[in-house]
Amino acid sequence: MQLTIHKGKNCNFVRTVKKARKPVIDSSKQTLFFNNPVHIISTGAVVGNKEAQGPLKRFFRNVKEDIKLGEKNFERAEIIMFDEAVRMAIGSAKPIAGNVELLISGDLLNQMTTSSYTARNLDMPHIGVYSACSTYSEAISLAAMMINAGYFDSIACATASHFATAERQFRYPLEYGCQRPPYAQWTVTAAGACVISSKGTGPVIRSATLGKVTDFGQNDLSNMGAAMAPAAVSSMCAMFRETNTKPEDYDIILTGDLGKLGSDILRDLMREQGYNLGQQYIDCGSLIYSVDQNCYQGGSGAGCSASVINEFVLPQMKSGKYKKAAYFATGALMSTQSCYQGETIPCISHGIVIEGEQL
Amino acid sequence: MQLTIHKGKNCNFVRTVKKARKPVIDSSKQTLFFNNPVHIISTGAVVGNKEAQGPLKRFFRNVKEDIKLGEKNFERAEIIMFDEAVRMAIGSAKPIAGNVELLISGDLLNQMTTSSYTARNLDMPHIGVYSACSTYSEAISLAAMMINAGYFDSIACATASHFATAERQFRYPLEYGCQRPPYAQWTVTAAGACVISSKGTGPVIRSATLGKVTDFGQNDLSNMGAAMAPAAVSSMCAMFRETNTKPEDYDIILTGDLGKLGSDILRDLMREQGYNLGQQYIDCGSLIYSVDQNCYQGGSGAGCSASVINEFVLPQMKSGKYKKAAYFATGALMSTQSCYQGETIPCISHGIVIEGEQL
Repeated sequence: MQLTIHKGKNCNFVRTVKKARKPVIDSSKQTLFFNNPVHIISTGAVVGNKEAQGPLKRFFRNVKEDIKLGEKNFERAEIIMFDEAVRMAIGSAKPIAGNVELLISGDLLNQMTTSSYTARNLDMPHIGVYSACSTYSEAISLAAMMINAGYFDSIACATASHFATAERQFRYPLEYGCQRPPYAQWTVTAAGACVISSKGTGPVIRSATLGKVTDFGQNDLSNMGAAMAPAAVSSMCAMFRETNTKPEDYDIILTGDLGKLGSDILRDLMREQGYNLGQQYIDCGSLIYSVDQNCYQGGSGAGCSASVINEFVLPQMKSGKYKKAAYFATGALMSTQSCYQGETIPCISHGIVIEGEQL
Repeated sequence: MQLTIHKGKNCNFVRTVKKARKPVIDSSKQTLFFNNPVHIISTGAVVGNKEAQGPLKRFFRNVKEDIKLGEKNFERAEIIMFDEAVRMAIGSAKPIAGNVELLISGDLLNQMTTSSYTARNLDMPHIGVYSACSTYSEAISLAAMMINAGYFDSIACATASHFATAERQFRYPLEYGCQRPPYAQWTVTAAGACVISSKGTGPVIRSATLGKVTDFGQNDLSNMGAAMAPAAVSSMCAMFRETNTKPEDYDIILTGDLGKLGSDILRDLMREQGYNLGQQYIDCGSLIYSVDQNCYQGGSGAGCSASVINEFVLPQMKSGKYKKAAYFATGALMSTQSCYQGETIPCISHGIVIEGEQL
């Protein structure tokens, strides 16, 4: 892949995507196909007030006006949102598929405390997974594998992110009042959960494409979109190649949270690989906030694509508007410490293909 | 479970295990059985100099005398050890089973950077998993599931920990020279990796018992053994019940890193549940250091059980000394931030049963 200069649409900031350390495209198998029924039978999502003021406001059903939820700290609030989303999904699944047998989840906080602190109150086995903002599609991929293989009947997948906890951990506490650069994104305050089951009805997971960790030399903690775009390219190309499809075969192709700049980079890089993503491509991070909300490049965070998929995409698959969707959540795998130590940002993207089953 | 007072053997410190928030034992299914061949065909481990001076010194083949490995920081050294262990396992597996198709890994550092920074240099799909010091058995459980189901032929599993990086992150940087309490453990500097495959020969994974997150109200960051023991009890009881076995059916039963105090607590709690663990029970953390090494309760860290299993247990299964082993790695799922905020420590333990296949 060549050195390319990309110009973001909504800012006059020019970024270079540096030369790859290794080729993005190779021939090893990344996609698994599911022939047995693997349905997304129920979902749950909770979002903050800022998210509920954006373009998707009519889709979000559970909104928290106070993102501290009356708790003593934001971390507690994130746990409660996570818990609520999981219980919502499990509660809706129960009449259809009975008890959920396993929780696969993760989140952005150090040692994934949000996820584990929720799991201790749920009486079920737990698998902790982490791929930053790609955690939701990683969890769903694993759940689909296990259900397709017959190990379980119903598995819950969940993730969350919170603006205040993520800013404190990855950048600066909100109280510092730091300026944000124009290529920054805004961590979405949201939790999303779903139950995947062999029973019941609902959109069907056809395949999962497991991502490879890629690193193009980006090292700016505020510019996640540019760092993550090559990871999405890697997984998308693998998916198109291994499923023998092209962008036109999908009604909607989503990335997790590249933001406007990152999704522009993705379009350019995909064009270089021979794929024109066209109008059906959209980024969940670009979709969730409007320009006048001053979120610059858009939303990010594990809860971003989880809430958009759960509340916007899946309902429209159920209603028949979208028949076939590809969803590539994207994750940046650095820590603040690794960046302070001069490391660049490795990224990953796990993708799934979902087909609608009209109710 | 009743309030019980436990007295550690090697310190005059008395801990109470507080009343459970929820019953540890219930009837939902946690164990999966593997009927197709799922072999551990190769392993790799790298340990630090302190580990190589302990009781297992004649078993550790790859020792780093300088645990900074000549790098500019300990985090880089941890990455290099991780990478070396993975490449060792993959290299030995290649002549037997061909290319390894997937890496499942995780580690203790924030956002699992050690694992991701290694994965970016390996051209294969990556699944990031986290359950603190139970990460190795979680990764092996998932790999066994996927291989038993036929999704892949060969999967690498890996984890690591490093005394200096863990102390800096979870407690204090070494340079502060803080005193350690007598119930503390010593994070093991080690990396361990293995390749699980449907081809080749080697010890066979018969079942995996997925842990539930338990929390008994312990909130002392230095006393992980007392926090994790109830999680090991939960998973062990589930395993014995669901596999219809008892402690006497195993040649060796291992926990990950409860340390001396934690494993004494475990013995007591298991006795209350009707299981006498007897002489075949041993804790990897208690095994790795000798008393004169001043590590108090013993070793901890994800690399602890990974290196002990790889270098001590599996070779003796290959030689026929142990025919059947149960391995329960144990993980404490807190972060420093959650503990500062007054949260208690939730823990988990994923267990696997391994049977020897003599070479």
